[in-house]
Amino acid sequence: MANTLPTGSKIGILGGGQLGRMLSVAASRLGFVTYVYDPDPNAPAAHVAAVHVCAGYDDLDALSDFADAVDVVTYEFENIPTAALDRLDALVAVHPGRRALAVSQDRLIEKTFIQSLGLRVARFADVSSPTDFATVQSLLDHGAILKTRRLGYDGKGQSGVNTQEELESAWRSLGEVPCILEERIPFSCEISVIGARDTEGQIICFDPGENEHKYGILHKTTVPTSLPLQLRSDAVLATGSILRALDYIGVIGVEFFVTEGALCINEFAPRVHNSGHWTQDGCVVDQFEQHIRAVTGLPLNDARRVQNVTMVNLIGSDVDKLEDYYRDPRSAIHLYGKSEIRDGRKMGHVNTIMSETS
Amino acid sequence: MANTLPTGSKIGILGGGQLGRMLSVAASRLGFVTYVYDPDPNAPAAHVAAVHVCAGYDDLDALSDFADAVDVVTYEFENIPTAALDRLDALVAVHPGRRALAVSQDRLIEKTFIQSLGLRVARFADVSSPTDFATVQSLLDHGAILKTRRLGYDGKGQSGVNTQEELESAWRSLGEVPCILEERIPFSCEISVIGARDTEGQIICFDPGENEHKYGILHKTTVPTSLPLQLRSDAVLATGSILRALDYIGVIGVEFFVTEGALCINEFAPRVHNSGHWTQDGCVVDQFEQHIRAVTGLPLNDARRVQNVTMVNLIGSDVDKLEDYYRDPRSAIHLYGKSEIRDGRKMGHVNTIMSETS
Repeated sequence: MANTLPTGSKIGILGGGQLGRMLSVAASRLGFVTYVYDPDPNAPAAHVAAVHVCAGYDDLDALSDFADAVDVVTYEFENIPTAALDRLDALVAVHPGRRALAVSQDRLIEKTFIQSLGLRVARFADVSSPTDFATVQSLLDHGAILKTRRLGYDGKGQSGVNTQEELESAWRSLGEVPCILEERIPFSCEISVIGARDTEGQIICFDPGENEHKYGILHKTTVPTSLPLQLRSDAVLATGSILRALDYIGVIGVEFFVTEGALCINEFAPRVHNSGHWTQDGCVVDQFEQHIRAVTGLPLNDARRVQNVTMVNLIGSDVDKLEDYYRDPRSAIHLYGKSEIRDGRKMGHVNTIMSETS
Repeated sequence: MANTLPTGSKIGILGGGQLGRMLSVAASRLGFVTYVYDPDPNAPAAHVAAVHVCAGYDDLDALSDFADAVDVVTYEFENIPTAALDRLDALVAVHPGRRALAVSQDRLIEKTFIQSLGLRVARFADVSSPTDFATVQSLLDHGAILKTRRLGYDGKGQSGVNTQEELESAWRSLGEVPCILEERIPFSCEISVIGARDTEGQIICFDPGENEHKYGILHKTTVPTSLPLQLRSDAVLATGSILRALDYIGVIGVEFFVTEGALCINEFAPRVHNSGHWTQDGCVVDQFEQHIRAVTGLPLNDARRVQNVTMVNLIGSDVDKLEDYYRDPRSAIHLYGKSEIRDGRKMGHVNTIMSETS
């Protein structure tokens, strides 16, 4: 651990939402001091950080000062503007690195990259201009989804399409920006793997979780999944391949569709992931600490699951129904300190221990 | 839960050491915002608090502003100056309340109070002036400990004595302040119970832990203890009696000697307690969250133990030996972010999961 950051080192976190908040708490548990960078004066992570730099991602002077103040930078969201990243990268180590960001920021590059590793994705095509419409008919035959190549999340920036007319209309309503058309996969369930890779190249993954969505937003993750062990192994191996190919440092979240007994990769996020929140109450070391260990040069923990867990997101007014959870002896509540309740807003989550592992 | 503080309410914490730090994290998990009051600019809790009020406990103006800014005040140490408490008490709810503080701040009052509940303590006598020396000979016969009535902790402010001469000398070296002489109890082990009482009067205790000390400082807590169930029940009942008698709101730590198959109460602390750190990795809801629930009017969780745990304190340079713990799949590391290593200073602790509970 020659390059391990010593206790008291300063970790910069870009983005002060709930992920940054839980990263900050994990960093403190390892004796680090956190600087959270977020333009929102009410950023949830600011409540549990030593310093809140309240500035925009286009404020290059503030970014320079931030980079100078900290020993390493990480982030809670992948859509960091390139100019901001250029500035930070020149001054301080940023983990995970540029390649992971560049790949994950663009769905077309991401899918092409995953395919290049011999891993399966849904059939897709580049739809960047009206001239592309005619060439993608075979994808429309089974139903498809048009997605913006950049900046989509939680079901935003996408639209289901079945005909040329719908494709044209969807492309216009998405703003006529470069898009990717993906064949709709008939899947029996969605799973995800939270994996990590440290500076020594060690790769460790948490057990796959089974995800349920509501209105395009993650609703529930259950661990363990009921899938056969071989599929779970396949998911872990695929995650490891991605981490290795990207020379990745930190935690990654990889989403898979299970379709006809095989896996198809949906996408990955180069950061801690909502579907990994169960690790807070299911493992000795959770995804947030695993990430902080990786980016500070500490060794990863072995990520074994010690409890079976169901994680449920509290979306919008769900947070008003906490009373039962407070009185449930198996439920651990995690709130994000967001003052304003809005439809679709992630307000917190609850991890319920279902049984001990056998 | 009519008087429950809503999400986003502000909790004031007096004292910004490791206990305040872990209280602040627990409060954030429940969606609260914390203000830490501590004169030390490097207070560990300040790293994970929304606001750090850096002022002295004798600064009544700062205390007033602090009280005005928050919705409830709690504390991580019992030796709060009376003037400070008077000021706070007049402006804001303080939990646990004055009676718990008044009793626990003075060993003579504490012992007398515990006895009044029908609970056993070591034989003791008031030694406030040289005229008391002659009257306590019977306590010296089996060896005794002279302790200052106020402000002792971690073995400080006390001295073992066996003769009148040693008693006189010890009293002088402790500063000729009011003291209590306690008969030395031949005990087989020390246990402690972390209990909690909420605003509805519900009392819930964590499982007793067995404590080992080194140089007067807690070294290790093991849960469960190997003691018979009846003794464990006795310890929990005694803790409940104390909580009830003090009309207590919050978490308390009660220490017991086990002597000849019975319990003898050593002392209690009106706050979260080092011997309760195992709950962070052994329970769904830990002592810190239990305390925050109580002081904010939320219901307590049921405190069941879901893992067997050994907690080891990292004292002084112990913190340099972390490498093995980082690579131990059963160990959860908790560091306090203290920059300077000093002999006897608590730098962190490690919870090692020994097995799942059966």
